[in-house]
Amino acid sequence: MNDIELITQALLEFRDERDWAQFHNPKDLALALNIEASELLEAYLWKSSEQADIDKVKEELADVFAFAFLLAEKYDLDVKRIVLEKIEKNALKYPVAKAKGVAKKYTDL
Amino acid sequence: MNDIELITQALLEFRDERDWAQFHNPKDLALALNIEASELLEAYLWKSSEQADIDKVKEELADVFAFAFLLAEKYDLDVKRIVLEKIEKNALKYPVAKAKGVAKKYTDL
Amino acid sequence: MNDIELITQALLEFRDERDWAQFHNPKDLALALNIEASELLEAYLWKSSEQADIDKVKEELADVFAFAFLLAEKYDLDVKRIVLEKIEKNALKYPVAKAKGVAKKYTDL
Amino acid sequence: MNDIELITQALLEFRDERDWAQFHNPKDLALALNIEASELLEAYLWKSSEQADIDKVKEELADVFAFAFLLAEKYDLDVKRIVLEKIEKNALKYPVAKAKGVAKKYTDL
Repeated sequence: MNDIELITQALLEFRDERDWAQFHNPKDLALALNIEASELLEAYLWKSSEQADIDKVKEELADVFAFAFLLAEKYDLDVKRIVLEKIEKNALKYPVAKAKGVAKKYTDL
Repeated sequence: MNDIELITQALLEFRDERDWAQFHNPKDLALALNIEASELLEAYLWKSSEQADIDKVKEELADVFAFAFLLAEKYDLDVKRIVLEKIEKNALKYPVAKAKGVAKKYTDL
Repeated sequence: MNDIELITQALLEFRDERDWAQFHNPKDLALALNIEASELLEAYLWKSSEQADIDKVKEELADVFAFAFLLAEKYDLDVKRIVLEKIEKNALKYPVAKAKGVAKKYTDL
Repeated sequence: MNDIELITQALLEFRDERDWAQFHNPKDLALALNIEASELLEAYLWKSSEQADIDKVKEELADVFAFAFLLAEKYDLDVKRIVLEKIEKNALKYPVAKAKGVAKKYTDL
């Protein structure tokens, strides 16, 4: 079992011990992911990157990953495959020749 | 190299070919993660879970993972470890006896 | 009719001409508000405040206000009253003596 | 002084008594707005619209408005004007004939 499978297993076990599958529909998992992403953002509010509390970052990022893995599992998505495929797609939207050193959206390149 | 290391390597390569490390400070990575989480949420807007476009979910979830892995890499965080540690913490906040079948925040249990 | 009533009236008219009340349940309005807030955030991604495109800020902020006013209307909330009441509450959480010049959350003051 | 000016005045006073203008750059105000929008979203997590705690909705929506008004003030934007202008723009993107009873994004109409 690889790391992603192992993490997902641990998350499902935690969920099922609490009988929470009934609440974990994809839409609410997406809400939960947004809420956690926003708590992560709060670690940087009114601050520079350097001033952020790393422990808070670590905790909130863990929550983000938890809901992201749970949502991937709902759709039986292979996380490695979908990220590598997205990188390939983005390589077409952001060709090196145009995008190098430029932080613009592909629609503005 | 495990899956998470492999994904992270691919993301860093994509970033470095475009010379984007200069933009990828932790605060802006957290912003990017929130923006992608919100695009994922859009797949469910005005809809039930069943009506969501799975291709859109897949693409936006891939983007969420991309920025989550890049942020973890910035702080040299081991994704497996931080998620498993968070599960342990949450087990204390949400003891099975109290939380079983209940979708309340731990502060309201 | 004051400005807030006038804006709300215009938003309801726009909605009803399109027969969209059926989609505008509070939960989805809250999703829409988050999605627009995130599009506003995108105006600042990889940028300093000064580099943001003001036209994009204006458009996305208008969308944020639109869904915020629609949600307030759903619950028949008086925007002026709820904001002024929240300021009073926050004055207790952030007393001037403690909070002056300090950007900490009230729980850390 | 109309309601929006009055609310904005109260928010600026609260801010200035605490000497917080130094933290309130537009980028961080946009972060704060996102964080509050997400706390509002939390009122609906794992719930139907009807199950949401209205007091929480009221409080978080007040916070959303607070940062939205503060951001508008930063750019000297007239809230009524930008929302009415956006409605006009949206009327072109969502013509009644095409959009009536349909909850699709204008790009999919």
